[in-house]
Amino acid sequence: MVEERKISSAVVNRLPRYYRYLGELLESGTDRISSKELSEKMNITASQIRQDLNNFGGFGQQGYGYNVEYLYNEIKKILGIDKPYNIIVVGGGNIGQALVNYTNFEKRGFIIKAVFDINPRLIGMTIRGVEVRDVDKMEEFIKNNNIDVAILTLPKAQAVETANNLAEWGIKGIWNFSPVDLDVPKGVSVENVHLTDSLMTLIYKINDISTK
Amino acid sequence: MVEERKISSAVVNRLPRYYRYLGELLESGTDRISSKELSEKMNITASQIRQDLNNFGGFGQQGYGYNVEYLYNEIKKILGIDKPYNIIVVGGGNIGQALVNYTNFEKRGFIIKAVFDINPRLIGMTIRGVEVRDVDKMEEFIKNNNIDVAILTLPKAQAVETANNLAEWGIKGIWNFSPVDLDVPKGVSVENVHLTDSLMTLIYKINDISTK
Repeated sequence: MVEERKISSAVVNRLPRYYRYLGELLESGTDRISSKELSEKMNITASQIRQDLNNFGGFGQQGYGYNVEYLYNEIKKILGIDKPYNIIVVGGGNIGQALVNYTNFEKRGFIIKAVFDINPRLIGMTIRGVEVRDVDKMEEFIKNNNIDVAILTLPKAQAVETANNLAEWGIKGIWNFSPVDLDVPKGVSVENVHLTDSLMTLIYKINDISTK
Repeated sequence: MVEERKISSAVVNRLPRYYRYLGELLESGTDRISSKELSEKMNITASQIRQDLNNFGGFGQQGYGYNVEYLYNEIKKILGIDKPYNIIVVGGGNIGQALVNYTNFEKRGFIIKAVFDINPRLIGMTIRGVEVRDVDKMEEFIKNNNIDVAILTLPKAQAVETANNLAEWGIKGIWNFSPVDLDVPKGVSVENVHLTDSLMTLIYKINDISTK
């Protein structure tokens, strides 16, 4: 049961990780797990786990642990991934193509409906059965195909304006791979994957360790 | 000047973002910027900016602002990206190939030296001039080519063991795209890009907004 109060973004960011570990436990045939055992696996404290899950009403019984399948399904519902989502990829370059080819998404109900690009050499091609379409047809496609999410992989120069258009055309979430921070209207969510930032953070850590 | 005390990971995670914004200012010909102006651009408070940069000794003069080029170069040094890094990609699938094709990395001194895979159909191919090599030759290659970083894009089942091997063979940092948390020896840094987790977080945010 999802409560109405605001959940902190730190908790939200941990939810997919819980979901991933519970999925693995389920696959391996584990029925029940204590917060202590889960804590050892996930390398976070048992009290943190209890506190996180209490945000959603708590799912364990003292001394009895969590029912893995039940908890897995509840977190699935909390994340909102108990139903499928229609997705478009905006930008048919290397990253865009790789994401279309990533079959894991489909298994989880993330359905890529089309790729949009301006490059005439790409338009009309299909990637794993998904058609690359002219970016001029994007507004119409979004409106006619109940598209929830856009994966934005455009160069910096085009990303900001396109994001605003996507928001206007009814996109609810932008998964942003463009190396720029987007300023979209309220009601549209953005999650960034800033690859170069991430690699630079790794480089910092390497040097930080080696100077110790 | 980098001080010896430990910088919090929140600050470290913001550094690439400072670097990105300062790079844009530099490109646009801006010489000086106040923490207030930078704050408006970056959408964080001016006091946060001053506090962050004070971790590294501070670079501004009261009432005079920051010298953009100087600050850019100092952050570059702090991040450790004022010198090039030799990188290998482990796993020549979609994501691995996309990363090799991502020319932005090279511009920043991240040099991809080889891709490793077990698939005989891929071995011997080149991707943008980078050869795909047999994973059996990886240990030797790492040792002979002064490789700093491995980009890990293997399926979950192979990722954990491979990460341990990479650590043993002298890799200092693993940029992990595999959907699994790695437990590597001390002295090896890991930075995760868990794509499915990130997409799930976006889905949560979408639903969180729409129920408001």
